[in-house]
Parts: sequence; structure tokens; C-alpha cells
Amino acid sequence: MSDPHLGTAHIHTVWDRDLAPALSIRPGDTVTFGTLDASDGAVARRVAAGEVEAPPELAALIAADAFPAREGPRGHPLTGPVFVGGAEPGDALVVELLDVRAAAWGWTACRPNGIGLLDAVLAEEGLQPYTHLWDLRAGTHADFRPGIRVPLAPFPGVMGVAPAEPGPHPTAPPRQVGGNMDVRQLVAGSSFYLPVEVPGALFSVGDLHAAQGDGELSGTGIECAGQVTLRFGLERGAGLSTPEFTTPTHGGSSTRWHATTGHDPDLITAARIALRALLRRLQARGLSLEEAYVLSSVCVDLKISQIVDAPNYTVSAFLPLDVFAEG
Amino acid sequence: MSDPHLGTAHIHTVWDRDLAPALSIRPGDTVTFGTLDASDGAVARRVAAGEVEAPPELAALIAADAFPAREGPRGHPLTGPVFVGGAEPGDALVVELLDVRAAAWGWTACRPNGIGLLDAVLAEEGLQPYTHLWDLRAGTHADFRPGIRVPLAPFPGVMGVAPAEPGPHPTAPPRQVGGNMDVRQLVAGSSFYLPVEVPGALFSVGDLHAAQGDGELSGTGIECAGQVTLRFGLERGAGLSTPEFTTPTHGGSSTRWHATTGHDPDLITAARIALRALLRRLQARGLSLEEAYVLSSVCVDLKISQIVDAPNYTVSAFLPLDVFAEG
Repeated sequence: MSDPHLGTAHIHTVWDRDLAPALSIRPGDTVTFGTLDASDGAVARRVAAGEVEAPPELAALIAADAFPAREGPRGHPLTGPVFVGGAEPGDALVVELLDVRAAAWGWTACRPNGIGLLDAVLAEEGLQPYTHLWDLRAGTHADFRPGIRVPLAPFPGVMGVAPAEPGPHPTAPPRQVGGNMDVRQLVAGSSFYLPVEVPGALFSVGDLHAAQGDGELSGTGIECAGQVTLRFGLERGAGLSTPEFTTPTHGGSSTRWHATTGHDPDLITAARIALRALLRRLQARGLSLEEAYVLSSVCVDLKISQIVDAPNYTVSAFLPLDVFAEG
Repeated sequence: MSDPHLGTAHIHTVWDRDLAPALSIRPGDTVTFGTLDASDGAVARRVAAGEVEAPPELAALIAADAFPAREGPRGHPLTGPVFVGGAEPGDALVVELLDVRAAAWGWTACRPNGIGLLDAVLAEEGLQPYTHLWDLRAGTHADFRPGIRVPLAPFPGVMGVAPAEPGPHPTAPPRQVGGNMDVRQLVAGSSFYLPVEVPGALFSVGDLHAAQGDGELSGTGIECAGQVTLRFGLERGAGLSTPEFTTPTHGGSSTRWHATTGHDPDLITAARIALRALLRRLQARGLSLEEAYVLSSVCVDLKISQIVDAPNYTVSAFLPLDVFAEG
């Protein structure tokens, strides 16, 4: 029997232990999931309606992916849940990422007063709503504009299991049972360990990103639909307190980086200082404020350089210089 | 004329615009600095006095580096300051790191109620004061204990210039003019850009770390004395708001990592959750709590995975599995 496929007819938009399983499997089984983009088709609908201008070579492709807006609670469209036979609270669900494939196109956006790290600061500088559309068909890289090319490394932004606490839980914040973690190192070849809180675990996946920096600075990576193949296992009584993973990747593959630093008692403030300085470097290369912000979201990494030199902690923002053809 | 050398006879332990320059140079000049370890010789004195037990092969080496305790304000012993002719407020001081050499030995410590990220939490679990002594003579790696080996990548933990604000400033916190930034990517081959606030810039350097993870989790890297060779330049009117740098390195060189995650509205809390889970992984390999904490400080990296999925942000702690001989 071939491995089961769970398609985008099986979407839910909240975490809830009382959702009916879309599929029941056993430890050792492999499942391929079809997933939708984080906007649940809204970007495709806006392109189809002419509200967002797409590059000519992408417009028809994107419009063809438009589908009617979903009714019910808003949240990330997640494919699942999958009931894993034998999984009990206290176990770890082991999820091996065998394959992650992005769709043919993706989007990255920014807007004033959204969720991005610098939205409030940049709104005062005149930040405009902006949606960048990407052609992902080359597979390894996507062109941002002539001379700027971002490497692709697709991963699911959301993987999680149902929380023990009854009732619907929003998909936006990640929590101790995973969810919207947006950890870009969860690529094919990694293994993800999740604390099980309800019988059967009730695993779901979605929100693929074809690329993202550590931080997801403007609030979105390269958001896309796609397909994910996962093999499930169990570690009995693992007693995890928080999600863990192993991964073959740590950072990017650039040969040189430009980094900016922020020093402040508050790490979010330190990150804002570093990012604002980095956007100036991108603007100095001729990018608009919106382009700089969106590009940073898909390839700039935030590191906590030190978290011990009180009262000021240091966050560094790393820009991979290899994204520029001229270095 | 050969390049000037500024030795450890020229130490200061506060930042102060009114310190007399130890050396005056011009843009384009190269200077080699001798530097002392962050304890200002205290660890060597404690080894010499038998208060800290050293491995037999290191005891005599370390004891020979003991020197009398310094009088005056306590702080990182910094070599300098160097007056750079022509540097004016608003300029950027450009510091090219040509060579960074660690001394033959180093130390990493933890203690309850110190500055480390988990000191308060671990004190409740019985954390004891612990000083690990490292043999750095192999140059490329240092053995932690049989089967555990940490790659070395030395960098100065402190590089900075004098703040405009008069009076002495403590060396512990980094600030907009640099200082104790503890950014581990500032290795040989990087270039560091510092906002100049006083005429001549008044640059100083010290606090070499032979290795450190992003975060410096227990409060110390592999602390050591050493030698740093720097070439100085100026960018007129650069108007930097915060230190920046370019670097040939971004992360580590491991082939696989084990990572833990923390999810919380407060990034420091998220980092603590991730680190506590990671220490459990190290303890499960047979390390004591103190050994786990100290090892994490020299090789575990904290990344801000996402800083936009309110109310919970995600910090991940990455352990390079190549430090273990058995993977």
C-alpha cells in the first residue's frame, strides 16, 4: 500500500483537541501533506481581482490558484489533524522531514501597523503596504530584482499537536506543543520532537516558507503553498518540556555577511536598533524602504550575540552579501 | 619602520574620554596589541595559590602567568587607548582584524547568582561554582573532556572607543560606541565599524575569547590573554548609529545540530526555556550541571527564530553535535 496523502480538503484554522482526525496512522508511517499558504488564498484572490499587481510572467499562474474565501475562524490553514495510534501524553512525537516542496510562486509582505518588528517605527517614516511576489520555479534561488537573488530552503512554518487545554486556540502564537514556530532550520533532513498532550497527538502542518531569515522580520517569509512528506515515530515517556529538533543546517551559505548590532536591556529594542541600521545599508544600495524590509525578512538572521553583559544585551542582524550579484 | 606594538603595560579598566592616549597613529596604520584575560590575572593567581585545581599538564603554565592584583577600578583590562589622528565625531573608525591569537590556556566559569542566563534557575538546582581550564595549544580545537572537543575561533570580546559623555564608564555593558559586545563573528578577516564620538576616537581592545557561542550563556567564553593585530582606517561623516561589521563567518562548522526552542512574550524567558532544555540533553550525555552549562557557553548559539508571532516569540538554542566524537 502506498503512503497516504492528506490534501488541502482537510484544513482547519484553529488548534483544538476536539477536532475530528482527518487521518489515523501508526508509528512508522509516512504521510504526504498538501498545504496552503498562510493567507489561505487571499493573495491569489487579490492578484486575480487586480488588487495586487503581479509580474506578467506570474499573473496567470497566481490567479489560477485563487479559491473562494473560507468561512469560519481565521487562522493559518493547517492540514490535518493526524491521529497517531498509541501516542499518549508525556510521549514525544518524532517527525522526520523527508521532503518539503514549495509551490511555483510565493509572496512576502509588509505594512504599517502590522506584526513586523519595525512596523511602528517605519510607519512614522512613511512605510507603505507592499506585497512582493516571487517566482519559485527555479527551485534553488528566487530573483528579488536584477542583481539580487535569494537562496531557497523551504520548511513548514507551522507544525504542532493539539494542546491539552480544551477549546479552540489561535494559530498565530507558537506554544509548548509547537505550532507557528517559524524555525527556518526545520528543512528536509531534520527531525522534530514534539511533546504530546492528548491521545493520538493530533498533528497538523502548514504555512510553508520557501525562505526566511531567523526572525521573520517584516512578519512574513516567502509564503507559499506546497507539499510536505513526513515520517512519524514515538518516544515513550520522553517528558519533553518544549519542542526540540535536530537539523543539518545552522545558518546560511554566504561567503561574507554585513552585520549590524543593537545594545539594550530589552532584546526586542536591541533587535530593532540592529534592524533599522541594516535597512539603511539596503536602502543605500537603492532599495525602497519596503523592498529593504521585505528582503530582510527572507534572508537576514537575528542572533543573540550575548545575553549576560547587563544592563545591555546584544542582538546582531546578519545580511548575507552573496544575495548581491556584485557582492 | 615596523608596526607599533602596544603591550599589557598599557591597561585601563574603564572607558573615559579623558584617558591619556597610550599611542598615537594615523589612518592606514597597523598596531599589534597584547591583551590580558577578563579576570585580569585573577584565575592564574587562584591556580598559583592552589585555590583552583588545574590539570597537571597546565598547572605550571598557568601559575607562571600570575601577576599581582591591580589597584584601582575593577573592569575588563583593556589595552589602549589609541589616538587615531584625524578621527572626529561623526566619522566611522574602521578596524580590520588582521590576526587574533589566543594564549596557551584559557578558562570558562559558572557560579550561582553570577551573570549567566540561568544562574538563578540553576542555583535552585544546586549549581556550584566551577572553573574549567582549557589547553589551547593545539590551536584549532580544545578538548573539554575525552570525546568532547570544541573548535577554536578566537576574537576580542571588547573593542570600542571612548563615549562622548565625560567621566568613567564601566566596561561590562556594551554601548553605541562598542565595548564588551562579545560578538563571536569578529574573528580575523572581519572589519569592524565604530561610531567615533571624541577626537582621535580613543580605541581600546581586550578580553579575548578562544571560543564562544552566540549568547555567552554562562557568562564567559573561553577567556584568555592573547595578541591582536589591527589596521585602522576612517570613513568621514559615516554617521553610524551603532557598531557594524563585515565577517567571513556566520555560524559554526558542525554537520548536524540539536536544537531546543523556547516560546514566550519575553525573549530572555524564551531563551531560558530553550537553554534549560538543552542542558538536559547535555546532562543526559553524562555531563554534570556545571559542565553542561560551561560547555553550552562556549559552543551553543542562541537564534531569534521569529520575533513577530505575538504574543509568543521564539528563541532556539543550537548545539553543534560535531563536538562529540560519537556524534
